[in-house]
Amino acid sequence: MAERESQIVLGLDPDLGALWPGSGGEATGIAPAERAGSAVIGHCRALIDATAQACVAVKLQLACFERLGAPGWSALEAVAAHAKTCGLLVIADGKRGDIDVTARAYASALIGGVDTPFGNVDGLGAEMVTVNPLMGRDAIEPFVTTARESGAGVLVLVRTSNPGAADVEDLELAGGGTVWERLAGLVDELGEHGVGEAGISDVGAVVGATEPRHLARARELMGNATFLLPGVGAQGGRVEDLAPAFTPGRAGGLIAASRSIANAHLATGEDPAAAARAEAERLRAAAWALA
Amino acid sequence: MAERESQIVLGLDPDLGALWPGSGGEATGIAPAERAGSAVIGHCRALIDATAQACVAVKLQLACFERLGAPGWSALEAVAAHAKTCGLLVIADGKRGDIDVTARAYASALIGGVDTPFGNVDGLGAEMVTVNPLMGRDAIEPFVTTARESGAGVLVLVRTSNPGAADVEDLELAGGGTVWERLAGLVDELGEHGVGEAGISDVGAVVGATEPRHLARARELMGNATFLLPGVGAQGGRVEDLAPAFTPGRAGGLIAASRSIANAHLATGEDPAAAARAEAERLRAAAWALA
Repeated sequence: MAERESQIVLGLDPDLGALWPGSGGEATGIAPAERAGSAVIGHCRALIDATAQACVAVKLQLACFERLGAPGWSALEAVAAHAKTCGLLVIADGKRGDIDVTARAYASALIGGVDTPFGNVDGLGAEMVTVNPLMGRDAIEPFVTTARESGAGVLVLVRTSNPGAADVEDLELAGGGTVWERLAGLVDELGEHGVGEAGISDVGAVVGATEPRHLARARELMGNATFLLPGVGAQGGRVEDLAPAFTPGRAGGLIAASRSIANAHLATGEDPAAAARAEAERLRAAAWALA
Repeated sequence: MAERESQIVLGLDPDLGALWPGSGGEATGIAPAERAGSAVIGHCRALIDATAQACVAVKLQLACFERLGAPGWSALEAVAAHAKTCGLLVIADGKRGDIDVTARAYASALIGGVDTPFGNVDGLGAEMVTVNPLMGRDAIEPFVTTARESGAGVLVLVRTSNPGAADVEDLELAGGGTVWERLAGLVDELGEHGVGEAGISDVGAVVGATEPRHLARARELMGNATFLLPGVGAQGGRVEDLAPAFTPGRAGGLIAASRSIANAHLATGEDPAAAARAEAERLRAAAWALA
């Protein structure tokens, strides 16, 4: 972050109806999923190339790749690899969560790979993965263990940016506090032994940027966690409201923006790459100025 | 279920270290992931062929396929297709959950497919998908909508079978009841307009078979839901304790067993297929006798 002077995460949730012109996929004689996968790679590469200088990471929305089946998974790998060559960290945003043996399998898929009788199969090589904590500690720990072995990190859903967050995460508990505050406590505990030199733990939290009033409380409960802050732009969050995330320093928050960058040209009429670059740089400068 | 006299779901979570002999993958000159994918198909096909007559559905554990990347996703599709040719329903067990636009993308991947500028890309064609409700109503509704359009169903995590379920799902709420009871209420509401002729809704629930004391309460709260009951066998649940699930009739519960079927031969020393068939048939008869 210091090197790139950026806390901006380029969200890659390719919308098949809004791929940038020139993304490819024109080849005929191959299946629609292959053509779409190829166009998704083209679109994401162009978006990364346009904005990499203003960003520190990409966030790959796994759903948008999975809906193309095997060619989608190949596209996911290609896009992750391209992001790395541009010096960006890779966040695999799959919000997985399952019993221990299954959580280990997901961690293998997204981070470290797996030994098979046929040789080692590489994982996606993500530096961070998002995890859903509904099933409790044993659904999160295998991700933490695998991540720690690979020098990677985990981002646990704590208080998300969607309206439905009020349905479960905001429920008040009999013992005081809310469900999300309890989740925050779990994050703090799991990250206790993963705090590095910069004072930042390898267990972070997803805290929506759409409800800035929660940020200060989240910071109280998770002093060392990096916050992934989605919801800026299309979902209504504003960079200027995020200052409480950065009290442990600039590495305290990663600001994710997807549609507001990829679709910036729709508002300005500019070239997509130029518009995306300008929007990413605007966000970068606004965020860096907060600290 | 009536036709097959079975409520048994064959869980397919292929363990790469315990694939049945003769599963394949010997071809050389191709990548380990391709070989492993091919062996996973061979293993799952053999397991389906051995047990299909005693089962009503397969449950595909997505993590176990994803860890093989694109070849894993191809294997997932091949195994789902084979299960359908054997007359089995397909449950995609991915426990996805995300904001509305992303939830729609996951539903496209697992159920209905997606229109692209390059033509329609088919989804996995699952008849049921598991969904994580932590993010609330708007994370579940897109799955319900897509499922309803395709005559499919949704199984929402309510009270899972792992020890960590106590960490979040069992928390007591200030307004009374627990988090999981609140989730049960959400399931009941979302399924209200999806109750079919048999009195069973298209929104069901995952309720672990390891805590049978919860089943009666879950049934009170979700009168029309099908319960997916994981945890029989390797996780410690017993078929005989599941009777409260079946008060609305035999279609009230789907009993999932994975390792206890696939690894039955390890205890008996029999041929894997014969041992799996015997265990699946034992579970089928025990469950059918409950009603």
